[in-house]
Amino acid sequence: MTSRSLPTITVFQRSPDGGRGLARDMRVRWALEEVGQPYDLRPVSFAAMKAPAHRARHPFGQIPTYEEGDVTLFETGAIVLHIASRHDGLFPANADGRARAVNWMFAALSSIEPVIVEREMARHLERDEPWFERRQHLVEDRIRARLGDLSRRLGDADWLDGGFSAGDLMTADVLRRLVGSGLLEEHPNLAAFVARAEARPAFRRAFDAQRAFFGAADVGT
Amino acid sequence: MTSRSLPTITVFQRSPDGGRGLARDMRVRWALEEVGQPYDLRPVSFAAMKAPAHRARHPFGQIPTYEEGDVTLFETGAIVLHIASRHDGLFPANADGRARAVNWMFAALSSIEPVIVEREMARHLERDEPWFERRQHLVEDRIRARLGDLSRRLGDADWLDGGFSAGDLMTADVLRRLVGSGLLEEHPNLAAFVARAEARPAFRRAFDAQRAFFGAADVGT
Repeated sequence: MTSRSLPTITVFQRSPDGGRGLARDMRVRWALEEVGQPYDLRPVSFAAMKAPAHRARHPFGQIPTYEEGDVTLFETGAIVLHIASRHDGLFPANADGRARAVNWMFAALSSIEPVIVEREMARHLERDEPWFERRQHLVEDRIRARLGDLSRRLGDADWLDGGFSAGDLMTADVLRRLVGSGLLEEHPNLAAFVARAEARPAFRRAFDAQRAFFGAADVGT
Repeated sequence: MTSRSLPTITVFQRSPDGGRGLARDMRVRWALEEVGQPYDLRPVSFAAMKAPAHRARHPFGQIPTYEEGDVTLFETGAIVLHIASRHDGLFPANADGRARAVNWMFAALSSIEPVIVEREMARHLERDEPWFERRQHLVEDRIRARLGDLSRRLGDADWLDGGFSAGDLMTADVLRRLVGSGLLEEHPNLAAFVARAEARPAFRRAFDAQRAFFGAADVGT
């Protein structure tokens, strides 16, 4: 019965990354663990994601979505902001600090993630094109420019603006997409920032939960 | 003396688009006009944008930035959210409606704008590459997929979720980048959505203000 009032997130039925936690539900699970809010899951297949029932929740036919009471959200930025607004633990108490944390959330999603996604899209869709190798260098230089700026701003601080916030959570989860690419590793302070974020107990719980879910689903098939 | 307490936004000293209002300060000016908040301007040259004084405000060396009291913001999503949170007129009164408006803000900036920017980046940086024409078609198909989904969700409604909100403002300002490309015009309801947004008195005031500023600057040089 209590389960009825839990927020529900949609997740991939089968992990495209083998449980490495690179899908965007990871950042929502992580935020919920940071604030101690349990949640329910609704797994969707790749086919169901593009069908009308899911499109009603997510017009672009992706995951995750977040449903709580009468509200349905489909952008991870809005979902994490919603969670951070309704619970303690992800936003500073003062209004200015909160505005700056929100600023880092938008920076992660609109200034840093898009060029990282562009690199991934090219690797999926343009790998056989004659321009792939040359263009990949151009895209990686655009990523390097962003990471260089971010690295200089972070300096030797633990987090981007004082204590850990939803801005750090989103930035770290976006940068996780680059782990192992060599690009993140060019900036030891950014690599350490991601490692510090991944060492948080809430991150570990969220990561283990998604891995266990996908492991169980694989066994069951 | 009152000027001291006004928020200050940084803008291009000279318009790269000839006053067409496609730079990202337009959405901040528009939001401020919607809520009736006057503001000051700090023009920055292209060289000054990359210098340390401006980098302290904006780590990626871009415009706009927004300064109000002790808070400095550099992402337009965070700036508009900040304005909408502190004034009436851009968010619904109820919490669920506000969460949905924020959801559309993130959708505009992280699901719609990036692929539009990708098309523009290619047109600036890759026009002489042998792959330019073929790849431009791939990018435009990605834009078409997003616009098709957005068009279906909007349907015959005036705005994305009830009354006009910061989510519509951000979505319309992102879609304005496509006016005249033919891509927006493939969806008459989206073209009408943008026209409806541009007909708002607050949009007109903001547009005229940036055009007058750039006109005046050009005359003065």
